[in-house]
Formats: sequence, C-alpha cells, structure tokens
Amino acid sequence: MTDSSPPSQSAGAPRLLLASASPRRRELLGLLGVRFTVVTSRFNEERLKETVSDPVEYVRQAAEGKARDVAARRAGVVLGVDTDVVLADGTILGKPADQDDAFATLRRLSGVTHSVYSGVALLAADGTGEAGVSRSEVRVVETKVTFAELSDEAIYAYIATREPFDKAGAYAIQGRAMPFVSRIDGDVSNVIGLPLWTVGEMLADFGVPLWRFGE
Amino acid sequence: MTDSSPPSQSAGAPRLLLASASPRRRELLGLLGVRFTVVTSRFNEERLKETVSDPVEYVRQAAEGKARDVAARRAGVVLGVDTDVVLADGTILGKPADQDDAFATLRRLSGVTHSVYSGVALLAADGTGEAGVSRSEVRVVETKVTFAELSDEAIYAYIATREPFDKAGAYAIQGRAMPFVSRIDGDVSNVIGLPLWTVGEMLADFGVPLWRFGE
Repeated sequence: MTDSSPPSQSAGAPRLLLASASPRRRELLGLLGVRFTVVTSRFNEERLKETVSDPVEYVRQAAEGKARDVAARRAGVVLGVDTDVVLADGTILGKPADQDDAFATLRRLSGVTHSVYSGVALLAADGTGEAGVSRSEVRVVETKVTFAELSDEAIYAYIATREPFDKAGAYAIQGRAMPFVSRIDGDVSNVIGLPLWTVGEMLADFGVPLWRFGE
Repeated sequence: MTDSSPPSQSAGAPRLLLASASPRRRELLGLLGVRFTVVTSRFNEERLKETVSDPVEYVRQAAEGKARDVAARRAGVVLGVDTDVVLADGTILGKPADQDDAFATLRRLSGVTHSVYSGVALLAADGTGEAGVSRSEVRVVETKVTFAELSDEAIYAYIATREPFDKAGAYAIQGRAMPFVSRIDGDVSNVIGLPLWTVGEMLADFGVPLWRFGE
C-alpha cells in the first residue's frame, strides 16, 4: 500500500483506491491529477479464466472482481481494471512464457488488426463488506491495433531487448514496439493499460476531483 | 552535430543523416534501431509559410526543403520531416505564444477531431550540391486525433504544467495531455513527431539497416 501523486486530499472528496499493483497503471492514473492509494486486490483470476471465455465479458468481470475484493474491506471509491489483448479469432494473448512464445505471439500479431479491451469498474463503498457497496459502474473500452508486416529480424531484435516478457501480447506500444504499430483506432492509453478518458469521466461522475497537479 | 544510438555502422550501408534538431525525433528514430547523425538544416520555413497555405503541400515541401539543404552539402541518405497540427477548417496550429494563446488553442481542440500531418522526405546524395541527389521520395502521413470535451479547469491545470509551450497544437499526446485524447485513428508515433512505420519502410527501401539494437 503506497501513496502516489502529489496533490492533497480535497475536503469532502471521496478517497480513491486503485485495486491494481501495476506501476504502469499507477503512472497513467497520475496523469489525471487525482490523489489515490494503491490497495492490492486478492481477486482470484484463475477461477474466472476457467468459466468465462468471451474476452469482453472476461475483462468486465475481472475488473469488477478486483474492485469488489478491495471494496469489501476499505471505504472509498475503488477502481478495478483488467486489460486483455485479443486476436480477431477471440484468442486472448497473455504474457509470453519464453522466447519461442514471444516469437509466436509477435508473428501472429504481424500484419493484422487485433483488439485491446479494458474493463473499468468503479465502486463506492463504506468498507463494511459486500453490502456496503452503494454504487457501481462497469465499462469496457476497445481499441483496435494494427501491426505492420514484421520481418523475423525485427521480431528477434525486439525479443533481444527483453521488453516483451512482462507484457500481455508480448509488446509495449509506448516502448520499442512503437514502430511495429502502423495504426490504432481508439484510445491509445487503453493499449498501455488504462483508458484515461473513460476513467476520468467515471471518476468525475463519482465526485473524485481531477486535474489537481502539484497542489 | 551529434551521434545517437548505440549500433555501429554496417559495412557498405549508407550513412543516415537526420535533418532535424528535435530531441523527440531523435529519440523516436532510435526506436527503429538505426545509426544516424544529426545535421541541423538551414532551410528557411518562413518563406514557405508565405507561399503555401495547403497543410499537406506545406509539410511535403518543408520536409523536402529541410532534407535538400543537408543533402546539398553532405553525402548519405538524408531524412527530413515536418509535422503540422491542423484543424478541420485548415487552420495550422503552431506553438502557443503565451498562456492565453495556449488556452485558446486547447479550447479549439476540445471536443473535435483534428489532423496531424507529417511530411517525410528521404534523399540519397553524394554531397556535391543539388545535382548530387540521385534519388528522392516524399510521403505525407495523416493521423486523426479526437479530443474529449475539456473543462476550463482541465485546460488551466494543463497549462500550469508548462508542457504546452514548446508543442505545436499546445499538447503532447505522450505527456500530460494523454487523458485529453479520447481516440486516435492512424499512427500514434506521427502525433509525437515521426511516423515510425512509414519512415522504417522508406529507410529499408533505401538500404538503411534497421533493428540494430545494442550492437
């Protein structure tokens, strides 16, 4: 549990809790100028993976599951997020297990359009268990990402940078994979891991003050 | 004139010269894994501004003008780039002069879609003057950028970060303006200042080796 962002808590404003340990999500959320606390969720994604195969339904339920776990024990507005990289045939691409897996993943992305889906769940809770959740909203954001035709040389060079290994879909659009992406259609921050405009709209709707930089 | 990127020159490969002093372009070009030298162009954009009003024609001629200036006095493959931020009515948005100008610019971008155009010129030259240019190619890349409806509070907070002042269009999509951009359609690197996929394709076509990281 750590505090992020410089701004001070506004009087009367709800406390924002981010149910994600991802440093990238933390950094992105900071761009909205909100004060928040990171609370790691204990939500079990493995069980969900066995029961839900539709990617949109999966990110929706995973985002809500993460937020509900935190909301049951902490008072505030809880943000849960889950992002998946999905091929046109519905295959969900996880983090690559090894070099061969990274190569196979990038080869499948080469020259085609895939989708990045994020589920975003926002829950207002008083911390008194599941019954203490007074309000919830869940949205799913899709961004289409088109990769150029990649040579084996380009893929091997990228894998050698080690960047693919902690990334779903084996690439980071904000990193060395930027030249691989010939176009995107949708919110670019969603591809990095947090659809900022959607999150900002939902936070404002829940009374969380935005744009408090350097206060 | 400075050397960038770690890779060593490949035997027989042409020397790449970047006719741009922009640190952002230098950083982006490095993502393609090419070795290059920065040579500042002395091309006079002011005269072009007076004679060419069409944004697509402007970035095309500005990119080629920057590259030709360097190609006339240096041997190698010369890359010239010019990027413009253009409203739907054809207005070109430059770097804001002051806070009021930055506010007015961001207010105009709020809630609408604008275009970012980059002209990309690649010239092969032997450094013996204008007649020494043996090959040239110029392309223009367009990316459509849609801003969310921005509150005055959001705009003022963004201006207070000082980020708008050295940016055409008064914003940086890769910076604190990321939450303002609800969607893009096209190449995101083009919006930062260099359409990487297009540049990579052109460089490969001119025999410049790519993807040489850390050699």
